[in-house]
Amino acid sequence: MQFFNHLESNVRGYIRSFPAVFKTATGSILVDEEGKQYIDFFSGAGTLNYGHNHPVFKKKLIEYLNEDGVVHGLDMATTAKKDFLTAFENVILKPRNLNYKIQFTGPTGTNAVEAALKIARLAKQRANIVSFTGGFHGVTMGSVAATGNVLYRSGAGVPLDNTTFMPYEKYLGVEHDSLDYIRKFIANTSSGVDLPAAFIVETVQGEGGVNVASPKWLRGLQAICREFDILLIIDDIQAGCGRTGQFFSFEGMGIEPDLVLLSKSLGGYGLPMSLVLLKPELDQWEPGQHNGTFRGNNLAFVAAAEAIHTFWSDESFSKELTVKSHRLQSDLFALKLRYPQAIKDVRGRGMLHGIQMHDPEKTKAVAERAFELGLLVERCGSEDEVLKIIPPLVIDEALMNEGMKIINQSISDVFENFHQAPAKIERKEYASQ
Amino acid sequence: MQFFNHLESNVRGYIRSFPAVFKTATGSILVDEEGKQYIDFFSGAGTLNYGHNHPVFKKKLIEYLNEDGVVHGLDMATTAKKDFLTAFENVILKPRNLNYKIQFTGPTGTNAVEAALKIARLAKQRANIVSFTGGFHGVTMGSVAATGNVLYRSGAGVPLDNTTFMPYEKYLGVEHDSLDYIRKFIANTSSGVDLPAAFIVETVQGEGGVNVASPKWLRGLQAICREFDILLIIDDIQAGCGRTGQFFSFEGMGIEPDLVLLSKSLGGYGLPMSLVLLKPELDQWEPGQHNGTFRGNNLAFVAAAEAIHTFWSDESFSKELTVKSHRLQSDLFALKLRYPQAIKDVRGRGMLHGIQMHDPEKTKAVAERAFELGLLVERCGSEDEVLKIIPPLVIDEALMNEGMKIINQSISDVFENFHQAPAKIERKEYASQ
Amino acid sequence: MQFFNHLESNVRGYIRSFPAVFKTATGSILVDEEGKQYIDFFSGAGTLNYGHNHPVFKKKLIEYLNEDGVVHGLDMATTAKKDFLTAFENVILKPRNLNYKIQFTGPTGTNAVEAALKIARLAKQRANIVSFTGGFHGVTMGSVAATGNVLYRSGAGVPLDNTTFMPYEKYLGVEHDSLDYIRKFIANTSSGVDLPAAFIVETVQGEGGVNVASPKWLRGLQAICREFDILLIIDDIQAGCGRTGQFFSFEGMGIEPDLVLLSKSLGGYGLPMSLVLLKPELDQWEPGQHNGTFRGNNLAFVAAAEAIHTFWSDESFSKELTVKSHRLQSDLFALKLRYPQAIKDVRGRGMLHGIQMHDPEKTKAVAERAFELGLLVERCGSEDEVLKIIPPLVIDEALMNEGMKIINQSISDVFENFHQAPAKIERKEYASQ
Amino acid sequence: MQFFNHLESNVRGYIRSFPAVFKTATGSILVDEEGKQYIDFFSGAGTLNYGHNHPVFKKKLIEYLNEDGVVHGLDMATTAKKDFLTAFENVILKPRNLNYKIQFTGPTGTNAVEAALKIARLAKQRANIVSFTGGFHGVTMGSVAATGNVLYRSGAGVPLDNTTFMPYEKYLGVEHDSLDYIRKFIANTSSGVDLPAAFIVETVQGEGGVNVASPKWLRGLQAICREFDILLIIDDIQAGCGRTGQFFSFEGMGIEPDLVLLSKSLGGYGLPMSLVLLKPELDQWEPGQHNGTFRGNNLAFVAAAEAIHTFWSDESFSKELTVKSHRLQSDLFALKLRYPQAIKDVRGRGMLHGIQMHDPEKTKAVAERAFELGLLVERCGSEDEVLKIIPPLVIDEALMNEGMKIINQSISDVFENFHQAPAKIERKEYASQ
Repeated sequence: MQFFNHLESNVRGYIRSFPAVFKTATGSILVDEEGKQYIDFFSGAGTLNYGHNHPVFKKKLIEYLNEDGVVHGLDMATTAKKDFLTAFENVILKPRNLNYKIQFTGPTGTNAVEAALKIARLAKQRANIVSFTGGFHGVTMGSVAATGNVLYRSGAGVPLDNTTFMPYEKYLGVEHDSLDYIRKFIANTSSGVDLPAAFIVETVQGEGGVNVASPKWLRGLQAICREFDILLIIDDIQAGCGRTGQFFSFEGMGIEPDLVLLSKSLGGYGLPMSLVLLKPELDQWEPGQHNGTFRGNNLAFVAAAEAIHTFWSDESFSKELTVKSHRLQSDLFALKLRYPQAIKDVRGRGMLHGIQMHDPEKTKAVAERAFELGLLVERCGSEDEVLKIIPPLVIDEALMNEGMKIINQSISDVFENFHQAPAKIERKEYASQ
Repeated sequence: MQFFNHLESNVRGYIRSFPAVFKTATGSILVDEEGKQYIDFFSGAGTLNYGHNHPVFKKKLIEYLNEDGVVHGLDMATTAKKDFLTAFENVILKPRNLNYKIQFTGPTGTNAVEAALKIARLAKQRANIVSFTGGFHGVTMGSVAATGNVLYRSGAGVPLDNTTFMPYEKYLGVEHDSLDYIRKFIANTSSGVDLPAAFIVETVQGEGGVNVASPKWLRGLQAICREFDILLIIDDIQAGCGRTGQFFSFEGMGIEPDLVLLSKSLGGYGLPMSLVLLKPELDQWEPGQHNGTFRGNNLAFVAAAEAIHTFWSDESFSKELTVKSHRLQSDLFALKLRYPQAIKDVRGRGMLHGIQMHDPEKTKAVAERAFELGLLVERCGSEDEVLKIIPPLVIDEALMNEGMKIINQSISDVFENFHQAPAKIERKEYASQ
Repeated sequence: MQFFNHLESNVRGYIRSFPAVFKTATGSILVDEEGKQYIDFFSGAGTLNYGHNHPVFKKKLIEYLNEDGVVHGLDMATTAKKDFLTAFENVILKPRNLNYKIQFTGPTGTNAVEAALKIARLAKQRANIVSFTGGFHGVTMGSVAATGNVLYRSGAGVPLDNTTFMPYEKYLGVEHDSLDYIRKFIANTSSGVDLPAAFIVETVQGEGGVNVASPKWLRGLQAICREFDILLIIDDIQAGCGRTGQFFSFEGMGIEPDLVLLSKSLGGYGLPMSLVLLKPELDQWEPGQHNGTFRGNNLAFVAAAEAIHTFWSDESFSKELTVKSHRLQSDLFALKLRYPQAIKDVRGRGMLHGIQMHDPEKTKAVAERAFELGLLVERCGSEDEVLKIIPPLVIDEALMNEGMKIINQSISDVFENFHQAPAKIERKEYASQ
Repeated sequence: MQFFNHLESNVRGYIRSFPAVFKTATGSILVDEEGKQYIDFFSGAGTLNYGHNHPVFKKKLIEYLNEDGVVHGLDMATTAKKDFLTAFENVILKPRNLNYKIQFTGPTGTNAVEAALKIARLAKQRANIVSFTGGFHGVTMGSVAATGNVLYRSGAGVPLDNTTFMPYEKYLGVEHDSLDYIRKFIANTSSGVDLPAAFIVETVQGEGGVNVASPKWLRGLQAICREFDILLIIDDIQAGCGRTGQFFSFEGMGIEPDLVLLSKSLGGYGLPMSLVLLKPELDQWEPGQHNGTFRGNNLAFVAAAEAIHTFWSDESFSKELTVKSHRLQSDLFALKLRYPQAIKDVRGRGMLHGIQMHDPEKTKAVAERAFELGLLVERCGSEDEVLKIIPPLVIDEALMNEGMKIINQSISDVFENFHQAPAKIERKEYASQ
């Protein structure tokens, strides 16, 4: 670790939460240089929905490399890009009756966010964007203005502008309908909130503490958009690609976003890739007006196309996810019943759940203990008070149970044996995936 | 092509300049789906300094994949990252007596720019950044504010702020010393230019038209920085990684930037990766204050480390580049003498040169003709009036000559046979690399 | 009128509501060039609390002019300024145990607002200011950013920034405590609302529709300020100088603002003057850092000092205002009972009341009819749906009754005789004041 | 003085330069409470072109007050406003063939600047404004963004945006044509300077150090405006109303500004008043979109109309000013010859001149010495290194000579008797004006 501390900037983050040097990874297991295995309940912050180094994708990648397929292609046409676009159109868009143009925006989520905010402002000729409390959209200047957390905002070094924050669904408490509030501010001409070009919203706020918007609330938000000629941008970077049970997190809700943002697990193999889906009438870009060196990461196209074929060609994967997520949910409710002194709330959708504790310090202790016990689990929420349960979607039942056991044990160690040393760690060797 | 036009956003760019579907690539050759070969004088806008799919790196990548090395690692410690950092410290930093902390900022150049502007503003507690006419630093909101070209600026959808533009070295003509101008504006307390946190500058402006700053001018700029306590940021994203003959473009000039930005060819194999080098005293980040899902693209680390070992362990590559670039330069001067009616100026450093034409329309015609004849060459400059000659650094003499011949032929076709049809294209099969 | 239309910009406003050429004015009566008299229920938007051309002040002004007292004094020391400061300290500040430094900011309210926002930002080193829905603070760039109404905001020509709008007391409905909302947004570190330097608030929103904040709400607001180290700025430009019954609108509420803004009636005779009261520890200005040619309008100082002596040396004026305002209130309640189909709400404090109608079009018709019948009454509120009743504080009972009769008649004409022509106007000659 | 220091904010400025309590004033003489007389070479920073308390205007003001003319009229039509407008149209606009709409913007110069910047941005739908090095336009947020001096800029408390600074005529030295520079930045599409809505410029920069633009330069600036569809705003607040010899400072130069700003001496008697002249096609305001309580300062209208009639009905005043300014100029050249060790430059136009010293500290000492000797003279320029000679235009020859003698003596005392105490002050009683 000292080596990294010496050379790497103080800004490094996850290396502090997970202080080990990881060497290999497959499925839901990471292995460090000393051979210690860890179950992954973090999935690269939602990037590894299909697990680490999926063998089918790996085979395709190696083939592509062996055949000297184009690796770096800017935004030129390549065979790999064509294959990805074909798969995306035929397997994702068409069956869902979605009619979008696709923009490759550069390889990481914030590039997609920046592109979407720009085209929304250009198309509506308005500067203001409405974002939501607890929202996270990235840390480049345009995105961080739409991000709620003060840690990221304070990093900008200048005041952040052209963005207004509105309360997410239950932000003001369950008894308040935040839509009333939002509508009032938008409709009233003396509210001081300038008519926005767009709302940008996550259906589940991962970074913000696993806050889940209800379909009703999202429909209400969309209704406000339609009434006042405002665009609806769904940032599906963390919640999309199957995380909540369907490919898009907003499926089956009666939502038709004007723009949809994808990244993270889109690339399939943890490879950088992101895109914006935009309704054809919004595609008012000049050629080259938004660019980026790595819009054409063809290795990512290869894995992404393969992921689409493997997991989304029929409904079997979605059905499997439904079963898994019900099991996860019931495990979490049981956990909450067992530790009422520790746990304030459990919540989530699909395979994205949160355990909100009463005390952020304890949340930290639990996560650290879990790491000792061989589990990667991260914290989120405005006070880092929520344990985020976000395993690979492909995790098998045994490992899932193992992980939940470690969480159970960690809470127990932190809360019940508070004055004792934590229980001795019994290490177990997981089968290679 | 119609397939891409139908699905992809109107924002697509290079696909218009190079309308072919590329399938494979090695060294300096791309091959399209119809088997047509193209010499690459564009190198992915400076991303492929080591050529397409370098066989040594490829081998390492396939090994790494086969061994299930961690591919996606957020900013956790991994073996691949450690290897990269070790190589970078030992081969790049130490021999040059450079003492920097390293920040991985997310995978593309603009992420590095955004991070650098943020930390500069935080460290100096000032909002203003000085950028330069013709500068290009990316299109996310913070970077595009520091980018000169109106096409990108107009894409922002909001006014761009906290940035002041100063004239690049010869912007006001060769007889003017733009440093006088800059110094006056910085020193004078009634200039209306707020004391900046930093200057951000490219030593050679690639996008801006292959404008080359002299060592003297850069030293003068640095002197102004030192005098007024301003940080000097060198954006070496396009000009670094050997493009101008040394690893850093500013080597041997007496320049010690406070921050250095690398991306593009850093990843070695065209894989997304970027970083900020910052003087230790500037490393005032809070943990996690600048983050990003793809800061840890381990495949890029693998290729990047290998590239450093292969090309920078001794001075042989630099020496080779000196020879190559002299040859290129003399070819370009000869070209200018041959076509004075077409060519206004040739200029550049190392393997980054430009042919400025009198007429942007003709520049376009030449590039299109070159593409027909089997050469990828792009335009740059504020009017797209400059042909940018930026082949892979590893290109061999034969292909280099072939490429120059095509440029010669294209100019001839456009200017000398203006009223005739262009000469019939004689296609040649290049040896596989 | 054609003369004015021909020469004056389209931006002219009140001339449209009150289309007459006014020649003379005394007390609560204006007289136009044709000799028609109008009762003034508008008081120059709160500038003429002591009536037009108060005879005592007039005498002083003429004496001062005759003696060649300094008229224009920049911010130099003058006898007139000394006299004003002495009066203000002895009669206003000391008896109320208020300890403020005084800043003369230039002659109109928006100058005071701009100065206050600047010093708040400088003192706290934060950019954000919280303003309130319905708030009006002026139209220069800093002030209009804190002003809610879209008409003024849209005039800026650029996006307005560094300001966040929070709901005024009953903005979200009487059943909601907007303080809960405000506190949540301020306290929560993921709300996206950056910690503000200050809250700027009117105790009664004149322009915003005569919205009255309760003492409890204001105390709650102050408590949030104290808890989070935020400054409290009371904009008392319209509600101060006796309008609500005491010199300051916040007296007797347990409020100790960090900054207080005065203008409008401060000058006594309708002469341009404004000031900022700031707690001594906030007085962190550099000499001359905020300036302005007309900070020293000495004629205004003369009338202002006289106004303080005449009206505020003892409590008699306040007591008189209590009686008057009770009468006004009861008249308005009676009006509401009489015209439930027309009037939605009546509300206000002191001599600043509003009659909110159901239909903005009807509000307009009533105001126009009242003007025909010899009464100046203006509209306010986000839809201009509120008649603002804001007569000179010195108005006598007879004129007050006359004015209320005209309002009664106007409502009747508009609502009850809707399909007929309005009743013939019986003009009455008011006694000169 | 202590009284003022105790009560007034630290921001107070001129009171520090001129530490006396002024009681009366006539013509070019101020008298303090101790009866000491001062010659006024400052004229309220250009507000008292017609001297203090001009007897003709005084008579009119007293009459108007005695007759109970409307004093405060918001922007309603009044007899006094009509008289002013008639005078302004007939005496100022028509004889100069100027066709402008008139906007009353509130009572002080910065209100006019803010209004002009707003309407320029609205009319052109562009955010950027070009201002000039050394320019001063006020300290409200919109104006201070266009003001060059760091003292004022640093007071804003937030970064200032939407403004680009270009070099004033000789800013880069006499050998450089700053128009070349400006044109390059405007014409070149990669300059980073967004096409501005307007240029705002003073023909003589008073605050900036008495920098004088040549007619040729101003015409060149106008030519750039016309070529690129940019508006030309002349801020004539300090240089207008006769200061440079004609009513407008740009007369006879072939300049036709799109907007002209007047204030300061416009009100005639030092009373707050300002206006914007705008070409009819730019008058795109919504009614009431820019407002302000003191747009209708009718006392100012009375004096302003009288000033126009008295001084501008024929050419005699202009001719008188030509004679006076030539005398002033020759006196200053003589002074420069006498004190080459002290004086670096003398310059100016009409009755607005500057004595630039080599050393700002000495400039301060001279001004302080002059005050002791009974002369008000202020400093300007980016280092406060310039003595600004700006007496009332109506000053008679004797007083002008007295003032120049005091300057002479002060320079002598500071430079020639540097190690001695300054000469004993011989006070002289000036005839009452």
